Amino acid sequence: MRSALRALSNGIDEAGSPLINQVLINNFFLYKRPFMYLVSRPELHQFIERCMKAAGAQSAHGSALADVLVEGDYRGHYSHGLNRLDMYIKDLKTGICEKDGEPVIEKSTAATALVNGKNLLGPVIGNFCMDLAIQKAKDVGIGWVTAYGSNHYGIAGFYSMQALKCGFIGMSCTNTSPLVVPTRAKECSLGTNPISVAAPALDSDSFVLDMATSAVALGKVEMQHRRGETVPLGWGCDAHGKESTEAAKILQGGGLLPLGGNEATSGYKGYGLSLMVEIFCGILGGSHYSKDIRSWKETNKVANLGQCFFAINPDCFAPGFETRMSDLLNMQRTLEQSEPGLPMLIPGDKASLHIAECEQHGAIPYHVNVVDHVNSVAKELGVSLLPTDRTIEP
Amino acid sequence: MRSALRALSNGIDEAGSPLINQVLINNFFLYKRPFMYLVSRPELHQFIERCMKAAGAQSAHGSALADVLVEGDYRGHYSHGLNRLDMYIKDLKTGICEKDGEPVIEKSTAATALVNGKNLLGPVIGNFCMDLAIQKAKDVGIGWVTAYGSNHYGIAGFYSMQALKCGFIGMSCTNTSPLVVPTRAKECSLGTNPISVAAPALDSDSFVLDMATSAVALGKVEMQHRRGETVPLGWGCDAHGKESTEAAKILQGGGLLPLGGNEATSGYKGYGLSLMVEIFCGILGGSHYSKDIRSWKETNKVANLGQCFFAINPDCFAPGFETRMSDLLNMQRTLEQSEPGLPMLIPGDKASLHIAECEQHGAIPYHVNVVDHVNSVAKELGVSLLPTDRTIEP
Repeated sequence: MRSALRALSNGIDEAGSPLINQVLINNFFLYKRPFMYLVSRPELHQFIERCMKAAGAQSAHGSALADVLVEGDYRGHYSHGLNRLDMYIKDLKTGICEKDGEPVIEKSTAATALVNGKNLLGPVIGNFCMDLAIQKAKDVGIGWVTAYGSNHYGIAGFYSMQALKCGFIGMSCTNTSPLVVPTRAKECSLGTNPISVAAPALDSDSFVLDMATSAVALGKVEMQHRRGETVPLGWGCDAHGKESTEAAKILQGGGLLPLGGNEATSGYKGYGLSLMVEIFCGILGGSHYSKDIRSWKETNKVANLGQCFFAINPDCFAPGFETRMSDLLNMQRTLEQSEPGLPMLIPGDKASLHIAECEQHGAIPYHVNVVDHVNSVAKELGVSLLPTDRTIEP
Repeated sequence: MRSALRALSNGIDEAGSPLINQVLINNFFLYKRPFMYLVSRPELHQFIERCMKAAGAQSAHGSALADVLVEGDYRGHYSHGLNRLDMYIKDLKTGICEKDGEPVIEKSTAATALVNGKNLLGPVIGNFCMDLAIQKAKDVGIGWVTAYGSNHYGIAGFYSMQALKCGFIGMSCTNTSPLVVPTRAKECSLGTNPISVAAPALDSDSFVLDMATSAVALGKVEMQHRRGETVPLGWGCDAHGKESTEAAKILQGGGLLPLGGNEATSGYKGYGLSLMVEIFCGILGGSHYSKDIRSWKETNKVANLGQCFFAINPDCFAPGFETRMSDLLNMQRTLEQSEPGLPMLIPGDKASLHIAECEQHGAIPYHVNVVDHVNSVAKELGVSLLPTDRTIEP
């Protein structure tokens, strides 16, 4: 299970946003317990559904959330799975997010749509928009849908990957709470603004890019902080906007750096990509944007996030798309490695490795603290708990 | 003129590809001459047209190339302007690139098109495709066009910015010759694969991202090499795939690193973005891709590049797009600076500063060596030279 554990800590990076229950994960590292829980996908799915129903969500909405969170954990993006369940529950219970309703198409053409998410759970809006984008791509080759009035929607890759089922290219991105300090600035004004692009290859192989436009996610810095270790240059800056290796300075008044790090290593490109995501989401959609988005973990203000989705039908372009895709991916996978122990990967391969490990167990391995925490939440909601009868050594 | 000189050396970075005549520029630094030439935009445009005509290009094609190269230099992307003229001339004279013809739409829907570039000059294909994308965006809100059979098309931003004239968002990207070493590999398999996104704001303000998906361009490493200086970690790696600060090692058997640098600082994200560009261009379009693209400076093999263009009409989304754009841009420009001497910028501001400087002179300032070189090329072609009667101190 070493590699699952490694994937778990890596997952935090991939996912692009800090952990809600980072402290739980950190406690795991500080006070290691000699086992992890194994939870099957159906058990996990039903558990999330139970919790969401008890929190007041429509059953279809709870199920949509369960789909995304299960997929997040299954792919090793543990920061965007079960670990975030209590955030969604809180959003429903405080009433800051709507429990019932449907997203509404406010404007549309053959190829585009603007969707009012009606402040529903993010996955409900995400599914609605991605389905719409795919339908438009079936009709006219491409569909581009931007939503406003949305909430956290889990991993961006969940939506881009929907397009793979039709043999289409999919894309999704979202704006998020400000955590990133633009090049030359000394304050956070942009989110980790993740972007995901998925494209199909032969034999169910695929390319799945799912990345924050910041160098790393806050969770990764928090992890180093709890361990008392420094971070590499390029991850974050202090309150004066100076690049720092001290996790405490990044967390206390500083912020994350955009992909690329400082100006000399082209951090302004990551800053530009983050703005690009903001334009496709918040500016096109008319949602909150940049510094006006509520702070991370703030729950007394409506999120009103903007999200963007598109799908492209490769049949509208040169024949043989999937054959070329497979060739492109295999070209990279078979490049000579710089370290014998580090195999060449293409975006999505890390998730596939984690999935293979889950399949071996017939279940997803979890830090005991994560399960203990959601079970305490479930107790408060009065629903039956996640099973804790199967364990493995980490 | 100090800042123009600085912009000039910066321009090499921005542009995302190495300089054809890097050695000339480097000689300038080694053997400084006390002045620079000033060339007006019309003089430059007519000069390029004369050269292209003499090399056999259709007059409209020569003019299209002149538009792009002039714009490149005017915006301070000197590596993609006059400096590259002899590459285009060589491509025509060797017959590796077609002198005459028109791109052909091979497939199309209301929102998409596949274009066969017929191996014409890149700007001829780029203009054709971007016009088509804009027309489709007028019709159905978005247009996505991918071309194969193309050649170098100059700065990607030239095409994305066409969309600004209609108040649209524009995007363009292209695959390029392999110069980048993917994360964990020890050989180059991807190009600097630039991407440009432009979006309009109020009062002719705009966002113009125009970036290579590598950390820096080869030209920037070459420059440090000639100066005998090291490069920051994150720019490139040696022949073993190890990150290196030694320019010589990067240039001799090594390669550029993707945006983000090494794996710990998330270089795999830049690698993923580079693959994304390849998918939108070479894989969708059916052109050459990845390692199959001819080497940089190789001219005995058809380039057959893939290029992608899209335009989005913001009127199909939430009203007030340009107002929000201006607010977003100004939010970033007015952030507290980390260094008083380094003003906050948004993508495109550096180019605007360079344009303002050119406007002050009524001309574009050039390294004397660049002008001397193209004049020697012009002499061989038997056309009249660029004027050298106006100079300024650097």
